[in-house]
Amino acid sequence: MQLLSLCYLFKGLSESQFHGLSEITKQVRAQKGQFLIHEGQKAEELFVLKKGAVELLTRVNGDLVNVDFELPIAILRNPGDCIGTSSLVEPYIYSLSARCFEDSELLIIKQPDLINLMLTDHELGCCMMKNLAQHLLNRLKETRQELKIHFKTIFRSTQS
Amino acid sequence: MQLLSLCYLFKGLSESQFHGLSEITKQVRAQKGQFLIHEGQKAEELFVLKKGAVELLTRVNGDLVNVDFELPIAILRNPGDCIGTSSLVEPYIYSLSARCFEDSELLIIKQPDLINLMLTDHELGCCMMKNLAQHLLNRLKETRQELKIHFKTIFRSTQS
Repeated sequence: MQLLSLCYLFKGLSESQFHGLSEITKQVRAQKGQFLIHEGQKAEELFVLKKGAVELLTRVNGDLVNVDFELPIAILRNPGDCIGTSSLVEPYIYSLSARCFEDSELLIIKQPDLINLMLTDHELGCCMMKNLAQHLLNRLKETRQELKIHFKTIFRSTQS
Repeated sequence: MQLLSLCYLFKGLSESQFHGLSEITKQVRAQKGQFLIHEGQKAEELFVLKKGAVELLTRVNGDLVNVDFELPIAILRNPGDCIGTSSLVEPYIYSLSARCFEDSELLIIKQPDLINLMLTDHELGCCMMKNLAQHLLNRLKETRQELKIHFKTIFRSTQS
């Protein structure tokens, strides 16, 4: 329960809501190199990092160039970091892959259990979705910022 | 009310929830060239396009290169398209600017009225936030896709 409270998704929940959440949460171990989720697959599980490190990856494959590899996006190392939030949003398909960067311990919540909890407690659902929207907006701003940097690099190379 | 039902944010609301929403909605006109919202400013209003067209812009200014201009991101033309969803997410700061591309008619909802409605009806709040999270996840995927294209372009130029 203490670990769940470190996760941005559950910010603002009440003690009884955390209790309900902990009842549908299990603990798992995963070895270095093991994939937790695969980009493009059905999103059926949400993970919260307890110990270790997890790398987020996205596949780059080209029509114009002959490339096909997993591009690293980030490494999650903080207890409470979560993986697999696509399990909360239609069409429930993972948008990234996640692979253990070190031997890790995680909490796991099955998607149907979580959706069910949100449907029976709309206040919890509203709070979690608000937290998720805030997180996604931040990621979107960061990604737009990266695009701007690329844009400026191209602008500079055309000027020089 | 019919127009509000075209907006992705309000997908899945009941008739009585649409009624409550229409009570806090006003109609405004804006002229071609007029800014509806400014990037970086406090997000106090949400707009839904009724008629006309609105251009979304982001500021690009450089430390390394001497640039400072508004980069067009998209033009919204469909009735029901909405502008200013940052008014629903902390820290309530617009992440883009929006300028009328044509003379336009819009619905306007004040942010405190909408937040108040979500707080009194958590089911409505949960539904709207779920819709917003879904939309932001799609935008994030699109933006990541653009980054991948830039990445591949750079990869190709280093290979040629």
